[in-house]
Amino acid sequence: MKLLLIGYGNVGKAFRRLLHEKRDSYPILQNVEIAGMLTRQGLMVGDKENFSPDKQITVLEAIDFINPDVIVDMSAPNYKDGEPSVSAYIKALSRKIHVITVNKAPLALKFREIFEVAERTGAKIGFQGTVMSGTPSINLFRIQPVAEVSRIRGILNGTTNYILTRIYEGLSFNEALKEAKEKGYAEEDPTLDLNGFDAAAKLTILSNFIMNRSIRLGDFKFKGITEISNEEIRRAKSEGKKIKLIAYADNYIIQVSPQIIGPQDPLYYIDGVENALEIQNEIQRIIIRGPGAGPTNAAYGALTDLVLLLEGCL
Amino acid sequence: MKLLLIGYGNVGKAFRRLLHEKRDSYPILQNVEIAGMLTRQGLMVGDKENFSPDKQITVLEAIDFINPDVIVDMSAPNYKDGEPSVSAYIKALSRKIHVITVNKAPLALKFREIFEVAERTGAKIGFQGTVMSGTPSINLFRIQPVAEVSRIRGILNGTTNYILTRIYEGLSFNEALKEAKEKGYAEEDPTLDLNGFDAAAKLTILSNFIMNRSIRLGDFKFKGITEISNEEIRRAKSEGKKIKLIAYADNYIIQVSPQIIGPQDPLYYIDGVENALEIQNEIQRIIIRGPGAGPTNAAYGALTDLVLLLEGCL
Repeated sequence: MKLLLIGYGNVGKAFRRLLHEKRDSYPILQNVEIAGMLTRQGLMVGDKENFSPDKQITVLEAIDFINPDVIVDMSAPNYKDGEPSVSAYIKALSRKIHVITVNKAPLALKFREIFEVAERTGAKIGFQGTVMSGTPSINLFRIQPVAEVSRIRGILNGTTNYILTRIYEGLSFNEALKEAKEKGYAEEDPTLDLNGFDAAAKLTILSNFIMNRSIRLGDFKFKGITEISNEEIRRAKSEGKKIKLIAYADNYIIQVSPQIIGPQDPLYYIDGVENALEIQNEIQRIIIRGPGAGPTNAAYGALTDLVLLLEGCL
Repeated sequence: MKLLLIGYGNVGKAFRRLLHEKRDSYPILQNVEIAGMLTRQGLMVGDKENFSPDKQITVLEAIDFINPDVIVDMSAPNYKDGEPSVSAYIKALSRKIHVITVNKAPLALKFREIFEVAERTGAKIGFQGTVMSGTPSINLFRIQPVAEVSRIRGILNGTTNYILTRIYEGLSFNEALKEAKEKGYAEEDPTLDLNGFDAAAKLTILSNFIMNRSIRLGDFKFKGITEISNEEIRRAKSEGKKIKLIAYADNYIIQVSPQIIGPQDPLYYIDGVENALEIQNEIQRIIIRGPGAGPTNAAYGALTDLVLLLEGCL
């Protein structure tokens, strides 16, 4: 099974390392090979730790040139139009090349269009890495079939949850943001995390997949944490409460917004970069929590999708 | 696909009802039929709501007579030797008849023996319903492959957790037990819950499956909640703590015992009949929580196994 990796940043490097580490001990991975790696610098044919481009070609050309069985998209999200990933997925899926992605933008913008192609050809899409990194959320639904989900609710962005936690603990917003950057929990430009955009993209993907909706990022309003004052967080604390950025969807409402919640709410206890998702279906309410960030976690999400694909269970 | 149901108590009835409800809307279930139902009264051929035996035969004879594709064991556990289920599984699996079970005893007593037969013939075993009912725990591991689990820890028995919660809230042990019986959370003879046996059986199954161990119920000591005084629970409470019956296994230790835990521990917040499982692997720590009891939940666990089996993902 030939992979074409798109993007070779921290997640791409972690994925390559994990794949090499695991290939020896897990027979199911033994026939997997990285046939090419593509970055903005071009395509490198084969599998080497240090990237050096062999050809200056686009991702669409690279699909022709490598003819992979799977493309693994670990490139940074482009929320303008999801390109070049959207076109790459459509080209790949229409040829029955499977797609595994940790890149949220294509699925948050063009979920139905992409899945329609996959359904037509039978190609599979793995996207655990787009939501809660390797913590089962997308894939949790694969083992909870034939029960209608009426509501999902969660903390889906690690950066803002870390900042809110640290303000609660006494830092100012700027100190908390600075610390988050130093620890690698916030990017140099953290706008898309802080304004709720990232959480909204994840909620869009989850709702479309778990609740069978047809939502595009932009169809609903979302708020981030930038308008919360330290004072509001302290006041909530003095009342035994916390402010959390809550993503929520049921059959009528979809929203991301800061909420004041108390200790009777399981999400009250999700601090730092941890994420959590509550799923209410007709049978039960389950809650899963785990790390919501980190390149190794996201890479592990992509690797689990690869194993499920090889098992025929994506 | 022909099913033979073994046992037709609350879980069996809930399973049959769920299967009928879901068959209309989920194409994957459309070719599933209940070909026979077996209780201690005998075998009923076919699928009727009100059980009336057609033949006085044993489960081994019923397998020959019905020749099912799957046996679904919803009978009560026999912890003496796991019979007649152990013999039924071995007979079924050796003929490549799949097994789905919510009955803990056979797997807690003879896990390796049963799985060896399945591995030889390629028959599958679904057992989500044995641990945490329909809350993904066993099956969670199916979507978290190729990461070594170093530790599991959880609250796996709903009855004792309910009783501990109610004592914490002010009831006496006897009042709490009485209430648990009234609400259907404790059986008429609650010994196996109260003495830790049920949690130990679940921990045995989990450890064998998730951590690839070869443990039999009886190989390790376990304690229940019968020796805890109300006074100890109140004292823990006055120190801001709770006593919980914790199941724990790593690569060296396996135990079930009451533990005093504080609010920094995620299991502190698991109250009533809720269950939770913490899984530490080399990549991440994830925690799943959800209902740990109830016939509909257990039946849903068996139904999810059936769907995964039909998808080829057990």
